[in-house]
Amino acid sequence: MTVGLSAPGVLHPVKGVMLASCHSGIKKDSTIDDLVLMQFSDESSVAAVFTTNKFCAAPVTIAKQHLDSGHATRYLLINSGNANAGTGVEGVENCISTCAAIAAEASFPKQSVLPFSTGVIGAPLPVDKISSAIPSLIKKLGEDNWLAAAKGIMTTDTLPKAVSRQLVINGKKVTITGICKGSGMIKPDMATMLAYVATDALIPQSELDSCLKQVVNSSFNSITVDGDTSTNDACLLIATGVSQQSVSRTHDEFMSVLNEVFSLLAQSIIRDGEGATKFIEIQVEQALSSQDARELAYTIAHSPLVKTALFASDANWGRILAAIGRAPISSLDIDKVALFLGDVCLVKNGLPDEDYSEQKGQAVMQQQDIIIRVNLNQGEESATIWTTDLSYDYVKINAEYRS
Amino acid sequence: MTVGLSAPGVLHPVKGVMLASCHSGIKKDSTIDDLVLMQFSDESSVAAVFTTNKFCAAPVTIAKQHLDSGHATRYLLINSGNANAGTGVEGVENCISTCAAIAAEASFPKQSVLPFSTGVIGAPLPVDKISSAIPSLIKKLGEDNWLAAAKGIMTTDTLPKAVSRQLVINGKKVTITGICKGSGMIKPDMATMLAYVATDALIPQSELDSCLKQVVNSSFNSITVDGDTSTNDACLLIATGVSQQSVSRTHDEFMSVLNEVFSLLAQSIIRDGEGATKFIEIQVEQALSSQDARELAYTIAHSPLVKTALFASDANWGRILAAIGRAPISSLDIDKVALFLGDVCLVKNGLPDEDYSEQKGQAVMQQQDIIIRVNLNQGEESATIWTTDLSYDYVKINAEYRS
Repeated sequence: MTVGLSAPGVLHPVKGVMLASCHSGIKKDSTIDDLVLMQFSDESSVAAVFTTNKFCAAPVTIAKQHLDSGHATRYLLINSGNANAGTGVEGVENCISTCAAIAAEASFPKQSVLPFSTGVIGAPLPVDKISSAIPSLIKKLGEDNWLAAAKGIMTTDTLPKAVSRQLVINGKKVTITGICKGSGMIKPDMATMLAYVATDALIPQSELDSCLKQVVNSSFNSITVDGDTSTNDACLLIATGVSQQSVSRTHDEFMSVLNEVFSLLAQSIIRDGEGATKFIEIQVEQALSSQDARELAYTIAHSPLVKTALFASDANWGRILAAIGRAPISSLDIDKVALFLGDVCLVKNGLPDEDYSEQKGQAVMQQQDIIIRVNLNQGEESATIWTTDLSYDYVKINAEYRS
Repeated sequence: MTVGLSAPGVLHPVKGVMLASCHSGIKKDSTIDDLVLMQFSDESSVAAVFTTNKFCAAPVTIAKQHLDSGHATRYLLINSGNANAGTGVEGVENCISTCAAIAAEASFPKQSVLPFSTGVIGAPLPVDKISSAIPSLIKKLGEDNWLAAAKGIMTTDTLPKAVSRQLVINGKKVTITGICKGSGMIKPDMATMLAYVATDALIPQSELDSCLKQVVNSSFNSITVDGDTSTNDACLLIATGVSQQSVSRTHDEFMSVLNEVFSLLAQSIIRDGEGATKFIEIQVEQALSSQDARELAYTIAHSPLVKTALFASDANWGRILAAIGRAPISSLDIDKVALFLGDVCLVKNGLPDEDYSEQKGQAVMQQQDIIIRVNLNQGEESATIWTTDLSYDYVKINAEYRS
């Protein structure tokens, strides 16, 4: 079940990007792809952010090393069904082997390949299956395979996640197309689950790094399903430059569309969150610092009591107040706090609003998309994060994941 | 359903303490008590800790004021079914009215009464029902009513929680008896849900404050169900002195028994945790600081993915490692981390232990009481906290709480 999420619309090819996907045998069901290859033209720039989880997976370690090696990135090799995390030295060796297999077939150094894995933690990566699949995978590379790639990186996702936009800058058409996956173990921190966004705009490396940092903060770094930061999160932005149209982070129109693509991808992860029946936007306004605003929003978003009330469509504002009251923020003047559910004011000056009625609250709670807005009336900083409710199905999906 | 929790055993009266309980009409079911009165003899000392939630309830505010007033505490008035939280000025006035009703009947100043409420947040306290019940409640006061009091303070608790111990010091018998309630919204911080422990030992005020602080840290401040700190938490230690036996915090035997009473009461809250099917002890050893040890233990305890794996009896150690990896602690050397499930080593030096098998892990996971032990091999500090799994029933109980 998803919350207002449908299959991707038209996915425009990005000049300079070729993709392929196949079933290599990592997943049991042979009708489902589990291996994806992305290839970039030779002038491409690549920017990446990774999980901050200290137990990061082997592919995260190797992808960072390859990025730092000075070799241009030409390939991304992404498998689903196995995270290659908690696999020690063998996991690292397996990961390098798969990069080497691509490199040998394509006559590039192995450092030009970045590896990514997502799936079960702690199982050995079936490196032979992956290596055997690579020659035919390379042959299948084509510019129209974005949807197949989006499907090939799925794990507990119920729908593929992809967004595509085009804009015209100085008479030249520029395309931005991206895919991502993720449904549980979602609380990215400076990174996300797997996300790959490519554009044919021309963006130099240092500029691309800044662009990615800027859009990631308000998209993938502003979502949470369960507060659990994955060991394998990664988010990449690739600029092939093939459109010959230069842009920078100060190009408002391009950045606005780039931000739209990132936000829609990030929201699609929440809309497909494990067991989600509601899409919740939490807005915190007029905080003393943006850090405070984010901490407070996350405290509400992670409260199991708030999340179960949302699942029950119960306007239990007492639980939201209790979460606000325990948030680890520098100072809170409870007499100034205002709380809104959609447009309905629940609490003003720290007290139940006189005009509030359960009926008004219930009317908002019945909706699928719900905005919880907290105004601290203390400062000028704000934050917005997106999350889900906590349902029977979240428990079911995660209790039965390995069984 | 509870996890290894049975009805309380023998509850020894505490000299100098009288109790009474009745149904006043706050709860719908007239066969269930919802109002409890405790009375202390005139030389009693009382120490208290309260919730740190900034949206604390009216009774917490008033109880603190009355404690600070310099008047000796002679009565505790505790109602269940209504938290009197988020009720503004009216809530404070209602709270003071109930104290005044006791005071008028008993000819004491109202500051000698401490009020406590637990239940639904945001509903007006039915002060008339409470006041009407007080005269007969005072008449019912008796020293043998500990079990009735334990029942009268229950909300979503499925069993009353009470522990009693006696010891002989210098030939004099000293009794410690306590009751508590709590099942959800449990992550006390310097306080707990409602807990009242009384002894007839003679302990001066300043000494009693120190005793309470010491035992609360390793009991009620070391448990969590859902990470949600309540607006109404309070924990009191009362020393009537009627046994004429003086003790202090340096009296090892007394403190050991006091600690046992507090720990068993705290554990009983976890064993009756909302939807709990497992009782989990998380031990973190050889951390650089006790703060780090506690943070790490709580990160594991609050992870919905770890909790659902525990519910499923699935030895999914990858989720525990992922939680360790994202814990907000000062420094973590993942190559030194060891992880045990009961006596079974899962991870050594940050990697899966060679002798580990799924079968060994499953054998531990099938048990009802499970110890998760993390050794960081970095320092000398440790922490132990207690928690539950996350089950369908947790979601059910909290989704249907007000419906």
